[in-house]
Amino acid sequence: MGAGMFKKTVNELFRCKGSRLFVILMSVNYALSCVMPALNGGFVDFLVTNRDPSRVVWFAAFVASIGISASFMSYAMGVNVSRVILEMTTRLMGATCESFERGPLEKGEQADSSYTTQRVYADSNAVSSFVVNNFLTIGLNIVLIVFIFIILFSINPVFLALSTCSLGAYFILFRVLKKPLYNSSLANKEGLSKLFASVSGELSQLFDIKCDGAYDQSARTLKGIFEGYYPIYMKASRVSNLATSSDGLISSVFRGALLVISGMEILNGRMSIGEFTMVNSYYSMAFGYFKYYLNYFKSYQDARASFDRLEALSEGAEDRGTISVGHVESISLSNIAYRYAGKPYLYRDLSVEVERGKPMPLPGRTDAAKARF
Amino acid sequence: MGAGMFKKTVNELFRCKGSRLFVILMSVNYALSCVMPALNGGFVDFLVTNRDPSRVVWFAAFVASIGISASFMSYAMGVNVSRVILEMTTRLMGATCESFERGPLEKGEQADSSYTTQRVYADSNAVSSFVVNNFLTIGLNIVLIVFIFIILFSINPVFLALSTCSLGAYFILFRVLKKPLYNSSLANKEGLSKLFASVSGELSQLFDIKCDGAYDQSARTLKGIFEGYYPIYMKASRVSNLATSSDGLISSVFRGALLVISGMEILNGRMSIGEFTMVNSYYSMAFGYFKYYLNYFKSYQDARASFDRLEALSEGAEDRGTISVGHVESISLSNIAYRYAGKPYLYRDLSVEVERGKPMPLPGRTDAAKARF
Repeated sequence: MGAGMFKKTVNELFRCKGSRLFVILMSVNYALSCVMPALNGGFVDFLVTNRDPSRVVWFAAFVASIGISASFMSYAMGVNVSRVILEMTTRLMGATCESFERGPLEKGEQADSSYTTQRVYADSNAVSSFVVNNFLTIGLNIVLIVFIFIILFSINPVFLALSTCSLGAYFILFRVLKKPLYNSSLANKEGLSKLFASVSGELSQLFDIKCDGAYDQSARTLKGIFEGYYPIYMKASRVSNLATSSDGLISSVFRGALLVISGMEILNGRMSIGEFTMVNSYYSMAFGYFKYYLNYFKSYQDARASFDRLEALSEGAEDRGTISVGHVESISLSNIAYRYAGKPYLYRDLSVEVERGKPMPLPGRTDAAKARF
Repeated sequence: MGAGMFKKTVNELFRCKGSRLFVILMSVNYALSCVMPALNGGFVDFLVTNRDPSRVVWFAAFVASIGISASFMSYAMGVNVSRVILEMTTRLMGATCESFERGPLEKGEQADSSYTTQRVYADSNAVSSFVVNNFLTIGLNIVLIVFIFIILFSINPVFLALSTCSLGAYFILFRVLKKPLYNSSLANKEGLSKLFASVSGELSQLFDIKCDGAYDQSARTLKGIFEGYYPIYMKASRVSNLATSSDGLISSVFRGALLVISGMEILNGRMSIGEFTMVNSYYSMAFGYFKYYLNYFKSYQDARASFDRLEALSEGAEDRGTISVGHVESISLSNIAYRYAGKPYLYRDLSVEVERGKPMPLPGRTDAAKARF
């Protein structure tokens, strides 16, 4: 189901104008952000070995111009990301609205149009933003984690074992929180869409409220609507905050273990303070990426809930094909409405049954375009 | 106008349950996050001077337990922030809806209820989130900037001058972007509310669309609605990205200047490489806070646009007081509707003028409750 979301939305993404430019800009921007710290370090080494003032100015100008071009790039990319997200959102909205219109009438008539609009917009936006913001970085960050693991291994295999254990702890966290995150997201989205429908329903009775002077009653109704939404929202907030705080918990426990192990190694003379500083900062970097994946995982459950809601709205859309049947004994039509486009309905909620070889009775006035019908 | 927003919403904030707890938790959390790097550094010094394994374990356990309690604290705070934002949002929504209902009827009847609902929700949420997320950190970060400026001054007054100049550059940026940010935010919010109203209007004609089989026409209408919103959204995105990228531009230019100045100072033997490393990292920290204020300023213009939209909806609410007039010559009533609560209207769009001492003619059937009216 999740794979379907990515496949479908990444396909949509590459149909948007400028999506290739977006991929190129994003990669260049990523590369530039990796180069900056190295350049700063390079400057220090440069100062130690070089004694020529004019070359200092040139080097500084070079560093500054990299930064300046990075900021132009980030402008171009930012605008491009917005455009791609907007275009994807409206494509998803358009496709979902069309499927919804083509779907079973009962389903459509049951739903309030404010409810459906809020739902289609919020979910399309959630899915688009998630995919556009993540589909490149997921891969890039895995490469960086592997890189960090190799460095840790080269310093001392014990630290690789430790970081693999912490990664395991994150996997357990993912497994435990997967369902609660998905379910509370789903409930929260549904709650918000319903809140929109209820508030909109209340505001649409403005004329009656004013006539009856029922301001206080309306205020109470609105308060009731809001209070109904509180527990749903708070549940989603608790689960979401649980995920975020568990990250701090896991990293603190493993940081404690790191301190104990490196303390012992240093006391036994098997590790220098310098190596400890290195291990410490690479370990912090690794936790930075684990945190990225935790947030990714959280947004993923959220986007998946949105995607499933969009799919649910689209479900049961009519096929435009033709059905061929060899032999027909009777045709029954129920709840039909018929009119000329834009004119009042001639028939509404009419049910007829036509049997083979029998004349068909059709109620209605003589001018009711029976033949045409 | 902006000060009014803060005053009004911070007052609301302190009326919410648990808002005091929120302030305490946030301050403790801030303090804990400041303590962590110092503890890490302390561990290195500890290892150099201390040769007792059991004390290493105790120290590690102490560091880990600080981290663990910080993550429990962050859970409590995260849930509390969500609750306060939700409560403030619904309070603002409730107050705005009530004022809107009490406002002039023409204004209320002109607005589509989907439009009003989306507008009230989005704007209340934007204002609440902005105030709750920022009202403590604005002050705290100013303290930190002053602290960094003092350190830079103590190393070399030239670096204080340089960072004051860069702060000046940010102020110019704020001045230039203030109006475009506010106006494009306002236009974008209005565009999105209208998009909701249009899509909801289209979906509410579901029955007609199905009867006429007008799926393609409806898809074209939706496409038209989306395409009408593109330029408004893209303008807002360009201005917003311009603000973000200008930050990179300013910091690159001033980083270049920093490199030139410190390069010269080092070549002339007035500064050590160690001092340069310190200046460099404090300067980066200062830019981090400038960036915070840039983002703060961006969200502030956005929240201000939302606040003004809420105020505009609330405008013209009736007073519930009584008007006393000494001497009345005539009373004219126009566009009155009257009915018993829940019953059909007996009068609608009726206008009468009563003059002192003249009998009042009142049209209507004999059973139309004239006397009561």
